[in-house]
Amino acid sequence: MSASADGTITQFTPDANGCLPMLEHIDLDVRLSRRDYQQCMPELQARLYDMEQAVLEARVPVLVIFEGWAGTAKARMIGVLTRRLDPRGLRVHSITPPRTYEQQYPWLYRFWLKIPSYGQIALFDRSWYREMLAERTRGGDALRWRARCEDVVGFEHLLADDGAVVLKFWLHISAKEQARRFKRLLKDKLTAYQVTDEDRWQHRHYHSYAAVVEDLIARTGTPAAPWHVVPATDKYYARVAVTKTILAALEARLGRSTVALDAAAQSAGPDVAGAAFRRRGVNGLPPASAAPAEPAVGAPRILRGVDLSQQLDEKSYSRSLKRLQAQLHLLGLALYRQQRPAVLVFEGWDAAGKGGAIQRLTAEIDPRSYTVHAIAAPAGDDKLRHYLYRFWRRLPPRGQIAIFDRSWYGRVLVERVEGFARPDEWARAYAEINEFERQLADFGTIICKFWLHISPQEQLRRFEERQNVPYKAWKLTDEDWRNREKWPRYEEAADEMLLHTSTPAAPWTIVEAEDKRFGRIKVLHTVAQRLEAELGKVDL
Amino acid sequence: MSASADGTITQFTPDANGCLPMLEHIDLDVRLSRRDYQQCMPELQARLYDMEQAVLEARVPVLVIFEGWAGTAKARMIGVLTRRLDPRGLRVHSITPPRTYEQQYPWLYRFWLKIPSYGQIALFDRSWYREMLAERTRGGDALRWRARCEDVVGFEHLLADDGAVVLKFWLHISAKEQARRFKRLLKDKLTAYQVTDEDRWQHRHYHSYAAVVEDLIARTGTPAAPWHVVPATDKYYARVAVTKTILAALEARLGRSTVALDAAAQSAGPDVAGAAFRRRGVNGLPPASAAPAEPAVGAPRILRGVDLSQQLDEKSYSRSLKRLQAQLHLLGLALYRQQRPAVLVFEGWDAAGKGGAIQRLTAEIDPRSYTVHAIAAPAGDDKLRHYLYRFWRRLPPRGQIAIFDRSWYGRVLVERVEGFARPDEWARAYAEINEFERQLADFGTIICKFWLHISPQEQLRRFEERQNVPYKAWKLTDEDWRNREKWPRYEEAADEMLLHTSTPAAPWTIVEAEDKRFGRIKVLHTVAQRLEAELGKVDL
Repeated sequence: MSASADGTITQFTPDANGCLPMLEHIDLDVRLSRRDYQQCMPELQARLYDMEQAVLEARVPVLVIFEGWAGTAKARMIGVLTRRLDPRGLRVHSITPPRTYEQQYPWLYRFWLKIPSYGQIALFDRSWYREMLAERTRGGDALRWRARCEDVVGFEHLLADDGAVVLKFWLHISAKEQARRFKRLLKDKLTAYQVTDEDRWQHRHYHSYAAVVEDLIARTGTPAAPWHVVPATDKYYARVAVTKTILAALEARLGRSTVALDAAAQSAGPDVAGAAFRRRGVNGLPPASAAPAEPAVGAPRILRGVDLSQQLDEKSYSRSLKRLQAQLHLLGLALYRQQRPAVLVFEGWDAAGKGGAIQRLTAEIDPRSYTVHAIAAPAGDDKLRHYLYRFWRRLPPRGQIAIFDRSWYGRVLVERVEGFARPDEWARAYAEINEFERQLADFGTIICKFWLHISPQEQLRRFEERQNVPYKAWKLTDEDWRNREKWPRYEEAADEMLLHTSTPAAPWTIVEAEDKRFGRIKVLHTVAQRLEAELGKVDL
Repeated sequence: MSASADGTITQFTPDANGCLPMLEHIDLDVRLSRRDYQQCMPELQARLYDMEQAVLEARVPVLVIFEGWAGTAKARMIGVLTRRLDPRGLRVHSITPPRTYEQQYPWLYRFWLKIPSYGQIALFDRSWYREMLAERTRGGDALRWRARCEDVVGFEHLLADDGAVVLKFWLHISAKEQARRFKRLLKDKLTAYQVTDEDRWQHRHYHSYAAVVEDLIARTGTPAAPWHVVPATDKYYARVAVTKTILAALEARLGRSTVALDAAAQSAGPDVAGAAFRRRGVNGLPPASAAPAEPAVGAPRILRGVDLSQQLDEKSYSRSLKRLQAQLHLLGLALYRQQRPAVLVFEGWDAAGKGGAIQRLTAEIDPRSYTVHAIAAPAGDDKLRHYLYRFWRRLPPRGQIAIFDRSWYGRVLVERVEGFARPDEWARAYAEINEFERQLADFGTIICKFWLHISPQEQLRRFEERQNVPYKAWKLTDEDWRNREKWPRYEEAADEMLLHTSTPAAPWTIVEAEDKRFGRIKVLHTVAQRLEAELGKVDL
């Protein structure tokens, strides 16, 4: 985008950031001082030792898997974790590409040989995911990828059914940080060998690799074996985050709770350890809980990094709007001619402008070819069935667009925060939703999902405006005020949702909607771009 | 086989029966008199009505699915079931091939629209399996078949997670019986229309169709949504069997137990209703329990229909043995050259002759190319891990044969009967084992599985012989005598195992081993046949 001196964007140009995997939106600027680290780590290590004994006693097998970008020092991480542990209860496996003799067996054979015994902890520096990722990132075909994902989901499920705790970490750094680390390693002859050809290849393909990882997390993240994405720019932060996540999971499994996590963190969500963490109060709202005595580490945060200062002036807005609406008109016709269905999902804060965006989006589309579904609490038939039923029955047929103003994501947002769904229910929903959207995508459905984002201050301004403008007053309910009080918990749920349900075939787009004009144009632009990518260019 | 006047087979020729799906080994000659039926059905229908009320009250959604051969009068079955029910709590869905408008949506869409509400019972005359079966039996490809199976497993699992009871019936008749029914229908102008082109096509392809059904049952039978195969030659028998299975499942789910089933039947196995049933005492042993007052219907029986009178004279035996051993020698070489692994599984009664058969099988195979694993109770490392670990680590590499004298099937045989595995554990094992063998088969492993079958009398004779012959005495333990007392429970477990784990890629072969010579030759012949089918003919 081109910005004038005062930060106002005068022309909306394709936003490179818009089409990045959600993984690349994670706030990686989380740190822990060396002092804090040194203060807390011995205590955490001692607790890990206690858990090792408890695990042995309870005969629970534990698998901890480290995957992540090259350069994230997985071996060092494992060194820190195991420093105080009794080596008799431990196995560390460093997974290389399969050797010749290992290729003589079905591909999971060599991993079966490495499963821990009852009471043992097995730590994997890379794992079965190494082979899958290598294959897929180098262009392996989709059906084989699906089969591999199902093989490992089955494998991990079977271990979990047998009582195992399975934890999977993705150590995450940015492409920039990776470059920095490679450079440092290469400067020294003694460490240069660590940067392999495979690593260089990965770096050159960082973005497409990230898209595959995102897909992997969606396909293989299950309540039985959840993925934990850990920001690893700062090693101290990463080590504490991993250790606390392991401790929390083991304590949850063994029914002990010596880890001081607040209530929310003990819910059974995929990111158990840190869900409760809040580094600082969200702008304009107090932190949800008092700062814990321990250094705070937590689930990866996405929304707090969003740049809400972006704006669009009236003239650029009108010009862009006209052009995009004309384009969408033609794309709607192309969609019909090509008999492809499309699903557009709108989620976001109350008063973030979902309705307004949808209005502008549909203005020039043939009214026979789209339907807007405003989703409130389920009623009637919908209330009497599985929560996905009401969305299945509202799916668009071929050639049609269905627009959901709120959606199935209510399961992991409002139903989670308000307690309408139990923790096991909403935790399970990520996998259910990913499977649902996979079926739609396999059918040929074009899927866009938007999170319309504003600041709490802006929300307050809009609420007050609604209150004062008679013809807008109906939009504001007491519930809106109540929801506002739960902002931090909604943000936590939204962050987790964005990370665990973004896939290449059904990506989330975060829309900076503080400025309504900017937000609307970004929505229209994203839809147009995606439809064009799927349907081919249309001539204006 | 060619048999002489005294029933002795003088020459072993390919046994057409040997390569049939296990489905075709089910004893279909189970009947119920009209009088018995009329006596018990009103009572069963009344109990079903009570359950309908209980289901409504407990808000449990129930799906009952009827699949089966054309000509099994599924609609009549549904008529009988629903006769006394309150229609408000019921929905009956007759599933046709997808209509044009339904093809506008992802394939499960039309089934989602038909899921019952909480407390409702939905009965399906055909279901999502109709489309899948049609596609696969007409040559649809394997990866698509796998994907479809996983779609429905996911769908049923998701409903079960939401509290639904899902029951799937396969109404089973023989090809002969199907021909008889078609003929009867065609004779009358008023009913002739019922025999469709699709039905005729199915009948012409009965055997290959049965192989697909067997595969389907293995791939989609789960603890959450088990398949029940019901012998349907006799309509009275089938109706009572279905009704009792539904009653037992609902009562298990709702925690009521008004159905008079004996203890074994209440275990959570895939064939809940009839597991306890014993139509008559097994030869030479008393029935496991006193005959129930109600007419007896139960899980499909396989082993009791086995013809144990087959014999082979000494001369034919020697001749066949030499030829087969020479052939196996060459096939072993071909296996090595083609780098295919093979897995041969031997299960069966104590003293059925597993060891002797394995000895003859391996006599002329290069000793470097096979390994015999005698599987006893797990010990050491094996005991400390998932039950499949000890088999994974004994898998053959490419080009090698692994022979298992007892195997992973111990999970659903000895561990089930002796209570070493909990009902939920062994019930889950069918799916786990099918998945395990699927992975082996996908890798290219050639799999044969044998059940060596003898009568209890023959076992007794062999036990006594062992007792009296000093060099054989070590083979006989107290445990053998104890197991013998549990014959009916082992037979029940074996029947269920044979039915639920036989697949086209990993078929079971029942070996009539009453005559050792006959049994051994059948084993060698089957292995040779299968290896030749996979590796190509070898020249003797």
